[in-house]
Amino acid sequence: MSMITSTQKLEAALTEIAAAGDEGRRIFTRVYANEARAAAKAADARAASGKPLGPLDGRIVSIKDLFDVAGEATTAGSALLRDAEPAARDAVVVSRLRAAGAVIIGKTNMTEFAFSGVGINPHYGTPGNAKDAMCIPGGSSSGAGVSVARGMAEIAIGSDTGGSVRIPSALNGLVGFKPTQARVTREGAFPLSFTLDTIGPLCRSVADAAAADSVLAATAHEPLPQRNVRGLRLGVARGLLFSQADGEVLTAVEQALERLAKAGANISNEALDDLLGEPFRLQERGTLVAAEAAWIHRQWADSQPDAYDPIVLGRIRRGQTLDAASYVGIQQARAALLPALDARMAGLDALLLPTVPMLAPRIDAVQNEEVFLRTNALLLRNPSVFNFFDLPALSLPLPRGNGLAVGLMLVGRRGADRDLLALGAAVERELGQH
Amino acid sequence: MSMITSTQKLEAALTEIAAAGDEGRRIFTRVYANEARAAAKAADARAASGKPLGPLDGRIVSIKDLFDVAGEATTAGSALLRDAEPAARDAVVVSRLRAAGAVIIGKTNMTEFAFSGVGINPHYGTPGNAKDAMCIPGGSSSGAGVSVARGMAEIAIGSDTGGSVRIPSALNGLVGFKPTQARVTREGAFPLSFTLDTIGPLCRSVADAAAADSVLAATAHEPLPQRNVRGLRLGVARGLLFSQADGEVLTAVEQALERLAKAGANISNEALDDLLGEPFRLQERGTLVAAEAAWIHRQWADSQPDAYDPIVLGRIRRGQTLDAASYVGIQQARAALLPALDARMAGLDALLLPTVPMLAPRIDAVQNEEVFLRTNALLLRNPSVFNFFDLPALSLPLPRGNGLAVGLMLVGRRGADRDLLALGAAVERELGQH
Repeated sequence: MSMITSTQKLEAALTEIAAAGDEGRRIFTRVYANEARAAAKAADARAASGKPLGPLDGRIVSIKDLFDVAGEATTAGSALLRDAEPAARDAVVVSRLRAAGAVIIGKTNMTEFAFSGVGINPHYGTPGNAKDAMCIPGGSSSGAGVSVARGMAEIAIGSDTGGSVRIPSALNGLVGFKPTQARVTREGAFPLSFTLDTIGPLCRSVADAAAADSVLAATAHEPLPQRNVRGLRLGVARGLLFSQADGEVLTAVEQALERLAKAGANISNEALDDLLGEPFRLQERGTLVAAEAAWIHRQWADSQPDAYDPIVLGRIRRGQTLDAASYVGIQQARAALLPALDARMAGLDALLLPTVPMLAPRIDAVQNEEVFLRTNALLLRNPSVFNFFDLPALSLPLPRGNGLAVGLMLVGRRGADRDLLALGAAVERELGQH
Repeated sequence: MSMITSTQKLEAALTEIAAAGDEGRRIFTRVYANEARAAAKAADARAASGKPLGPLDGRIVSIKDLFDVAGEATTAGSALLRDAEPAARDAVVVSRLRAAGAVIIGKTNMTEFAFSGVGINPHYGTPGNAKDAMCIPGGSSSGAGVSVARGMAEIAIGSDTGGSVRIPSALNGLVGFKPTQARVTREGAFPLSFTLDTIGPLCRSVADAAAADSVLAATAHEPLPQRNVRGLRLGVARGLLFSQADGEVLTAVEQALERLAKAGANISNEALDDLLGEPFRLQERGTLVAAEAAWIHRQWADSQPDAYDPIVLGRIRRGQTLDAASYVGIQQARAALLPALDARMAGLDALLLPTVPMLAPRIDAVQNEEVFLRTNALLLRNPSVFNFFDLPALSLPLPRGNGLAVGLMLVGRRGADRDLLALGAAVERELGQH
């Protein structure tokens, strides 16, 4: 396609990182300049000989700082693990990326232990939003989103437990994809929630998301099936998940829906709040994420509480108060709710909604803990519903001129990840034509 | 095979129940004489016309009192649910039994909520052991075991969360089979533990167990593959699960092992206590079963504590004290332990051990709560390990003359339930020849 070599792209990305100075160090916690140059050179040689490894060969990829890289401590955005035992081997997804020829440029900054959607990190600093550096980047894959939006990587690999791929994608104007949980192995990724963690890409196009997804999932590289907007059955539930929304977000989303309708999509109003509200009602006294994090952090939370971001520690402490019976009850209710929503969505190709209901707030506005917690809850609200229901979800950037970014979330059917990506490519094409 | 009709067998069984008087009412909480007669007649008509439905057609089957039967309250051995809302439909396994032509003679008594292995029930009485009515029947499928051993049914369907099929099989001289959990749907069975509950048969031969299992699992009816004892690789771990054993139990098991060795089986000593002891170490502060029961019983335990067997309530109360993080930790550890034991058993066809390490104690000896709890723990010890590891397990009766019964447990590979049954048939044949 392009005649630009991997080496040229890598050098341009490294130049961007260097030019950003301290901000570069808030976006990347590590830069692998030498290894990346060797990988780019090898990819260029394969390209020159007409034998590329696949669609990710020679692409510039950043990885979130919770994936194991052999020989390095995996900090997961924490001070606590800065001097942890080095990982014995690469995370499985990192191995797959390397085997596919990806040029891993560095590790990106994140919320401590991936446990919030704002993107603030008191230990390694907070990268500014790519649209306006005074604003939050979104999290927990904060550096991941900014790395792609600022041209420091073509594709970032993040993790998403309650929106951590989709929130920074929405707030930085990117495509972000959270797969069905079982699609991508989490081996070698520092866990937040065994039940809800997923791994997916942040990038500039659905085609790139599909290419990255096929490598992460270790499936065959095939182009996405061609789909048209005409005739797509798109459901919109203008209730709970459209509430408390910024006017600009609603406007952008409604304009996109109008365009899709004009292009022949069948857009239906769906009343789903009885089900979409269940994750919140069920988890009022404590969440699956917090209970599972309480297990993962049981020793450190007692032995080194001062090493934590106090807000993250507070959420872990809350998880410690949940009783096992209530946890079992949430899991049982969830097992019954999944097929209930599946049945209600059976007549739809996708559900459409704002990825997050707000524009990125300013970093200085979320320093107050109460504001932080309210903002965090609202950022996580929409994305987290589809971790709970284990449905694949894709955030697409909406046309916005030079302002802050708005994301449109498309939610598909469990296990039909490629169908959702194909549908997303059709929507992306339609929205990009105007 | 036999020319005895289903109707004749049914009448003989009904006569046994009636002849047992009050004891019959402690074994069966319900007898479906009329429906059973109609079912037997239909089966006889199919047999006469040469069109039987399969190996269970016309067989006399009892079901444990925790399976839903449409239109009846499912008491699960409790007083609490005596007047519960009637079940809307049959449990799936009950439907499958009916569709296979089984003649369901009645519902059998059980430990309250299936929550102990002794078989005592303060509400509906305690059936005496079929070998000696002064002794415990074993539980929780107490009536199930006694119903078959006393000729009141040919096959009993029980549930097994920590041994509830295998313990009464061992103590009443029967074959008992606990499948891999995923093999048989639990829909319509009153739950004890979502993680560990399984459904399986108690009967007089491995062939009957295999026939019942294929109906419960809704797989095609096929005869078991023929296997020989010669060359079987049988592992024996004479450690933790051989400890605290009655001399008579050890003698019977060692004699059986000698016979199998003489017949050409390769019997190897296996050191597995590091793994087999893990379920106990992990669950010292609280068990998966107790935590899940605490969820299931959360409302009744508060609103109607006096309706419970105090010993069952005590175990539920203990489950209420476990925190969610510890529960998550047990589940995570279990997920890692399963493949660890699989790997260590990879070179074996089966593991062999005493089903329970004791002969049935006298009912009057377990009235003391401390003795009860110690006995219960020892009865559950060996079987429960293989619920934890989710491996199929088969208990075979050992030749014992007229004394109390001893069971030999064969443990197979997860999902290879039919292989274990085939192997069990070979062992049964060999041990029956002497």
